[in-house]
Amino acid sequence: MTDTSPVKLAKSLIACPSITPATGSVFETCESMLEPLGFEVSRFVAGDAPEQADLGGAVENLFAIRRGADDSRHFAFAGHLDVVPPGEGWHSDPFAPEIRGDLLYGRGAVDMKGSIAAFVSALHQLPRDLGTISLIITGDEEGPARFGTVALMDWMAERNIRPDLCVVGEPTSVHRLGDMVKIGRRGSVNMWVTVNGTQGHVAYPHLADNPITRLGKILSEIDELHLDGGTDWFQASNIEFTDLHVGNPAHNVIPARAEGRLSIRFNDQHSGDSLSQMIREIVEKHGGKLRPVISGEPFLTPPGELSELVATAITDVTGVEPELSTSGGTSDARFLSKIVPVVEFGLCNATMHKLDEAVAIADLDQLAEIYALIVRRALG
Amino acid sequence: MTDTSPVKLAKSLIACPSITPATGSVFETCESMLEPLGFEVSRFVAGDAPEQADLGGAVENLFAIRRGADDSRHFAFAGHLDVVPPGEGWHSDPFAPEIRGDLLYGRGAVDMKGSIAAFVSALHQLPRDLGTISLIITGDEEGPARFGTVALMDWMAERNIRPDLCVVGEPTSVHRLGDMVKIGRRGSVNMWVTVNGTQGHVAYPHLADNPITRLGKILSEIDELHLDGGTDWFQASNIEFTDLHVGNPAHNVIPARAEGRLSIRFNDQHSGDSLSQMIREIVEKHGGKLRPVISGEPFLTPPGELSELVATAITDVTGVEPELSTSGGTSDARFLSKIVPVVEFGLCNATMHKLDEAVAIADLDQLAEIYALIVRRALG
Ligand SMILES: [Zn+2]
Ligand SMILES: [Zn+2]
Repeated sequence: MTDTSPVKLAKSLIACPSITPATGSVFETCESMLEPLGFEVSRFVAGDAPEQADLGGAVENLFAIRRGADDSRHFAFAGHLDVVPPGEGWHSDPFAPEIRGDLLYGRGAVDMKGSIAAFVSALHQLPRDLGTISLIITGDEEGPARFGTVALMDWMAERNIRPDLCVVGEPTSVHRLGDMVKIGRRGSVNMWVTVNGTQGHVAYPHLADNPITRLGKILSEIDELHLDGGTDWFQASNIEFTDLHVGNPAHNVIPARAEGRLSIRFNDQHSGDSLSQMIREIVEKHGGKLRPVISGEPFLTPPGELSELVATAITDVTGVEPELSTSGGTSDARFLSKIVPVVEFGLCNATMHKLDEAVAIADLDQLAEIYALIVRRALG
Repeated sequence: MTDTSPVKLAKSLIACPSITPATGSVFETCESMLEPLGFEVSRFVAGDAPEQADLGGAVENLFAIRRGADDSRHFAFAGHLDVVPPGEGWHSDPFAPEIRGDLLYGRGAVDMKGSIAAFVSALHQLPRDLGTISLIITGDEEGPARFGTVALMDWMAERNIRPDLCVVGEPTSVHRLGDMVKIGRRGSVNMWVTVNGTQGHVAYPHLADNPITRLGKILSEIDELHLDGGTDWFQASNIEFTDLHVGNPAHNVIPARAEGRLSIRFNDQHSGDSLSQMIREIVEKHGGKLRPVISGEPFLTPPGELSELVATAITDVTGVEPELSTSGGTSDARFLSKIVPVVEFGLCNATMHKLDEAVAIADLDQLAEIYALIVRRALG
């Protein structure tokens, strides 16, 4: 009998290099794992026009579905097969999975090939007639994500496919498997502030207009903003200036331009647009210009059936009671939340994106058990 | 008879290239003009040790004196033979003086070889037995000025030479010859502000300490400072931020350090040290560090005998009533003012430090007349 343990499956996926945007062999491998389980697997490449290159063009995506009875519920697992670049200094080849002690090493071990492997392994533990199950797997979550999960959602919409519940397998655990589930994420927006003034000599300030003075007023007015005090489920929204630039080598010259950049992480009291409007008013009042780039809107799946299902399964398998959190950066759950209740739960994230990324083999086994329990109860 | 017109003498001086620090032929030429007038000419090189190179090492200086009776007054003319680099794009060779129309073109025509030529020409118009007259001429006024006028003053002090009145021949006229005399100059100090924080991810601001926030507070507190409202003779002191730098390419990272630079032009209500202390208190309160570099202290020769003498001579020759001003950048008068009442008066400064620097030949003639009248009345 074939070895369908999560560690065996994770090794197969890690062995396929798949730095963002992932295409090719890692998807072949994933497809070959799903077909024996009775899944109908569709793969397509999005964003392959040359002019889309900057947006992460030529991204491969995979949608797999095994349909239950016509009226059965539809449970979806979502994730990504792409990985961030390994960097220099690993103790073993990042794309040659290696077990040392209790750990499996390799890029993607926790983020998130290990999680996909655990879900596929869980499917082997479940009867085939439970209900509809799908896997929504992209090759660009770590990159621009323009042609990844968004393209998969378009693809599903065209075919009238809409899950009832969704778990994203991102590594949400912190100290031990199961200690954290994400029920939402904050939104994120970066903004570029440019203030043009009039260059001049410091000895004749009345003939100049110092843009740094005006940028300083913008800085201090933004510093005084109180966006909110947080909500039941979100911490307070927060603004940080991340860069300043003038680049004036002349000690006695008032420069012509000053620039700044800020980053806002925000909760569901705001949108990228409402914040852009708020900051733009301050910037324009002081004669500056604002260019906002929204990376993600916030989402929240308020605690309820789905989070309860996930939390209970975690406690039943591990004894741990998970914290329901909305902390951390953005994930593709921000897209999926528009069509389905979604929570994120996966492995421990201590080594994600780092050198010597590794997963405890025991965690992989427990995660498969947890996923199996979630699906069984969701569709049962 | 030799041509001792100021235009002839100015051409001789301009023909000797003398970009800061000036040495050699331009001083030979100057010396050869003064010896026939009965001056005792001393020349010495200061700052020629290799470790002094950054401070403008190997600067040549010239001190010339013609002594009157033991109890006679001592009038000094001070100036510089060095010039700023000509730059590209002149219509004639900057070191080949050329007359086109009413103007003499060449680097140094107004700043300030023309002025030195006018003074030497004035000496030819005066009787030899007037009193003590000296010329204090440096080869580094446009550079660090560390081994120029300061070294000349040391040299004079060692020989117990101290003038009673001094005119510096800087080009102070603005629209027409005689419209402005400088009786003082503001001081100048540049300050570098560095704020070290703690780098971190924008999603976890509580683990970081954003130095831009603190630099912003420093900026706004300094912006609110009111140094003074000006004095009878000085405009208000003024602070301008001239640069900001963070250099953080990562949109989601709170940087570890933020830097700023500011420039203060200040009147005699302050000193470089008092301002450094004032700004340092603000910077350190917000956890930053300050590095001040004082370029010049302010000076004022309050209106009195000397300015009256100069103004009257100007009006008598040109009909113009000069404004007594303290505007503009620093000059070597800031050093001389420590030992002698000093004012600055010279040619029109419209083309100084620019391409195609030029002086009106008529202005050279009138300036020689004015200088002659000043010396005659000062020593008469
Ligand atoms: Zn991930
Ligand atoms: Zn000058």
